[in-house]
Amino acid sequence: MTSPIPAGFKMGGFHCGVKRNPNKEDLSLIVCDEDTVAAGVYTTNLVVAAPVVWDRARTPSDKIRAVMTNSGNANACTGEQGDKDNAEMAGIVADKLGVSADQVLTMSTGIIGHHLPMEKIRTGLDEVFQRLGTDESHFDAAARGIMTTDKGKKVAAVECKINGRPVKIIGMCKGAGMIAPNMATMLSVVLTDAQLTPEQAKTVLADVTNTSFNCITVDGHRSTNDTLLLLASGKAGTGELSGPALEAFRAELEQLCQDLAKQIPADGEGSTHLIEINIEGAANRDDAKRIAKTVADSALVKTAITGGDPNWGRIVSAAGYSGVQFDPMGMELTVNGHLLYREGTPVKFDEKTVSQSIKDNFDTNVTLKFNEGNARFRYWSSDLTVEYVKFNSEYRT
Amino acid sequence: MTSPIPAGFKMGGFHCGVKRNPNKEDLSLIVCDEDTVAAGVYTTNLVVAAPVVWDRARTPSDKIRAVMTNSGNANACTGEQGDKDNAEMAGIVADKLGVSADQVLTMSTGIIGHHLPMEKIRTGLDEVFQRLGTDESHFDAAARGIMTTDKGKKVAAVECKINGRPVKIIGMCKGAGMIAPNMATMLSVVLTDAQLTPEQAKTVLADVTNTSFNCITVDGHRSTNDTLLLLASGKAGTGELSGPALEAFRAELEQLCQDLAKQIPADGEGSTHLIEINIEGAANRDDAKRIAKTVADSALVKTAITGGDPNWGRIVSAAGYSGVQFDPMGMELTVNGHLLYREGTPVKFDEKTVSQSIKDNFDTNVTLKFNEGNARFRYWSSDLTVEYVKFNSEYRT
Repeated sequence: MTSPIPAGFKMGGFHCGVKRNPNKEDLSLIVCDEDTVAAGVYTTNLVVAAPVVWDRARTPSDKIRAVMTNSGNANACTGEQGDKDNAEMAGIVADKLGVSADQVLTMSTGIIGHHLPMEKIRTGLDEVFQRLGTDESHFDAAARGIMTTDKGKKVAAVECKINGRPVKIIGMCKGAGMIAPNMATMLSVVLTDAQLTPEQAKTVLADVTNTSFNCITVDGHRSTNDTLLLLASGKAGTGELSGPALEAFRAELEQLCQDLAKQIPADGEGSTHLIEINIEGAANRDDAKRIAKTVADSALVKTAITGGDPNWGRIVSAAGYSGVQFDPMGMELTVNGHLLYREGTPVKFDEKTVSQSIKDNFDTNVTLKFNEGNARFRYWSSDLTVEYVKFNSEYRT
Repeated sequence: MTSPIPAGFKMGGFHCGVKRNPNKEDLSLIVCDEDTVAAGVYTTNLVVAAPVVWDRARTPSDKIRAVMTNSGNANACTGEQGDKDNAEMAGIVADKLGVSADQVLTMSTGIIGHHLPMEKIRTGLDEVFQRLGTDESHFDAAARGIMTTDKGKKVAAVECKINGRPVKIIGMCKGAGMIAPNMATMLSVVLTDAQLTPEQAKTVLADVTNTSFNCITVDGHRSTNDTLLLLASGKAGTGELSGPALEAFRAELEQLCQDLAKQIPADGEGSTHLIEINIEGAANRDDAKRIAKTVADSALVKTAITGGDPNWGRIVSAAGYSGVQFDPMGMELTVNGHLLYREGTPVKFDEKTVSQSIKDNFDTNVTLKFNEGNARFRYWSSDLTVEYVKFNSEYRT
C-alpha cells in the first residue's frame, strides 16, 4: 500500500510538556516543501483566540510554509501577551525554515485564559523538527498532537482521480465538546496534492464546511478557537482545476470533511449514540437546516435517544418551534426506518421494536419529511447522558 | 386578612381520573360572575394542541365566562377527535352556565398523542361545579388542578391601588420542562378585578410576557400547549384605565408575571440552582435579550453552575457566539457579585470563595456588562443536573 499522505508535506508530533501526561503529544507540525496554497474557515465567535486572529489575516494565501499547533492551552482570552506568544511561536518555525513568520499558520486548543508556557514550547519546537516525516506514522503523531479530551485521533483519507491524475486528500480533526476546564475547540487540517488557487481553496472549503463541520453539534457551544485549514500543494500534477474537475474535487473533499465531522459528535463527551437527522421535502435549504439544527440541539430529543425511547412528541414539537413555517399535517417521522408519526397524528407502532433498534445501534437515524418542496439537509448530533453532565459539572480544582 | 381573590371569579379543582394518583386534582375550573374581558398569549410552536386553536380564535373577548383546564393529557397531536373533545368540554361547561361554548376557554397539559378520557371528564365536570368558591383554598385547588410534574403549586398575588381603588391581581402557573412521557407545557392564568378593554388586556399581557414568561428557560423546548390567559372582571371600580393608571397596572402585572415565571426554572426538572442572567450596557434590548438567552440556554454554563464552578470561559464564549456584535474588550463579568473577567482577560479572584457562594445559594446571579449602550435584559434559567438527564432518558414503559 502506498502512503496516503499527499506529496509536498512533512509532518510530526511531540510532547513538550503543555499537557501533563508525557505520553500525549502536545505539539503538531506540518511543513510544506514549497510555498503552498492555504485557506481557512474560522469560528464565528466574537471572542477569538490569538491564533484565529493571526490565521484570518494571512489566508487565503499561496505562500504558506507550515501549520504549527499546540494542544493543552488555547491561548484565548490572554490579551496582548497572547498575541505576542503566538507571533513568537510562528517566528520560531519561520526561522527554522528560513521563511517569513507570515508564512506560518498557528492553531491552539486547550484551557482558556492562561498564557502559553513558552519555554516548553521553544524547546519542543526544536525537537519536533527532528521528527518530521512523510509516513502514516508521522501523520498520526501530528493528528494526536492536536487532541485534547478526544478518545483517539480523528483522521480520514481519500484517493481519487482528477484530470486523470491520482489525487490524495487527507485530514485530521479534534473536538469532543466545549469541556471542563474550558477545553475548547474544533480544529481540523486537510492536506491535498491537488492544484487550487487561493480563491478556489477558500470557496470550496467554505462550501463543504456548510454540509460537514457546520452540521454537527455536541452541545451547541461554538468555541473561541474553531479552525479548519485546507492546504493544497499542487504536486499531483492535475494542473489548474475548473469545471467538472473542480466539482469532482469538491465532492471528494465534502465526503472527507463529512467523515471527519461525524467523528466529533460520535466522540461527544459521554455520548452513547451518533444521531443523524435527515430533513427532506423542505421549502428550501435554509429551512431544512434550521429544522435539523433545532432537533439536533434539543436536550429532550438527545435524552430520549439515550434512553432508547421512541418519543416522537419531542422530535415533532422541536421541529414545530424551529421558527420555520410548514404544514404540520404534512410532516412524517421515521426513526431507524420505523414510521412513528404522519398527518398530524401518531401512527401505531411496536414501541419495543423501535426502542430495541435504538438501544442495539450506536447510529440512530431520525428522518423528518415535509410537504413543502424538495430541499434536504443532514445534521449529526451526540446524545445527552448522565456522563456528559457529570463530566461538565465536576469542579475543576 | 382579606381574600387575595379578585372580585368576580369563583374557582375550584377536582380529581376525575385523568391522573392516576387520586390525591392529585386533574380538573381546574374558573367561572366568571358575568361576561368578562379576557386575552391570551399562546405558544409559537407550529404544532399546537386543540385548546390552543380554540382559545386563539376566541380571544381577546369581553364575553368570557369560564376557563376550564385538564391536566394529565395535553390533547395535542390528536387530530379531529381532539378538536371535537375540546369543543365538547367547553360545551358542557357552557351548558351548566347557560352561556355559549364560545364563552368558555380551555387549556390542557400532559401526555401528547392520546385522546382525552371524555367519560371521566364529563363526570368530573359535574363534580367540580359543586366545589367552586372564592376562598384561597378554592384558588389553591384550581392551581393544583393545572399541575403535571410540578413539585408544588405555583401562585403569586398582588394588591395595589389604581385610580384610588384597591385592585387585586392573582395568578397561577405550571411547568417544569418538556418532560417524559411528553408531559409538556407552561400554562398560566392571571385574574384581576381591574377594568380593561379586550384590546388593553391583549396589549398589556403581550407586553409583560416579553419580560417574564418569555425570559425563562429550562431546556429551551417550547411546547405545543403553552398558554397564558388574563381575565379582568372590572369589579374593583377603577373605571377605564388610561395613562399613568394603565402604566401602574402594567407594572404590577409585570411584577406578578415575573414572580410566577421564575417559579418555573426554579422548579426545573432536577434543578439545583435558579440562575438569573443580567445583561447590561447592550446597544439595544434585542441584543441584550439575545445574549441573555444564549447564556441561559448553554448546557456548559448550566453544568458549571451545577458544579459550583466559576467557569467564566463558558459564559464569555456563550456571549461571543450569540450572534450579537459587541466589543469583546468592553465585556465585564461578575458572578454573585464577584468580578471574574474584564477587558479581554481574566481577573485574579479567589476561586474557592466564588465556588462556595454558588454552592451555598440556590440563586446564582450572572451579570455581563457591555460598553455598547444602555439596554438591559434579564433572563432566568435552571441548571442542568444528572437528575434532569436521568429523568428524561428513562424509557417510559
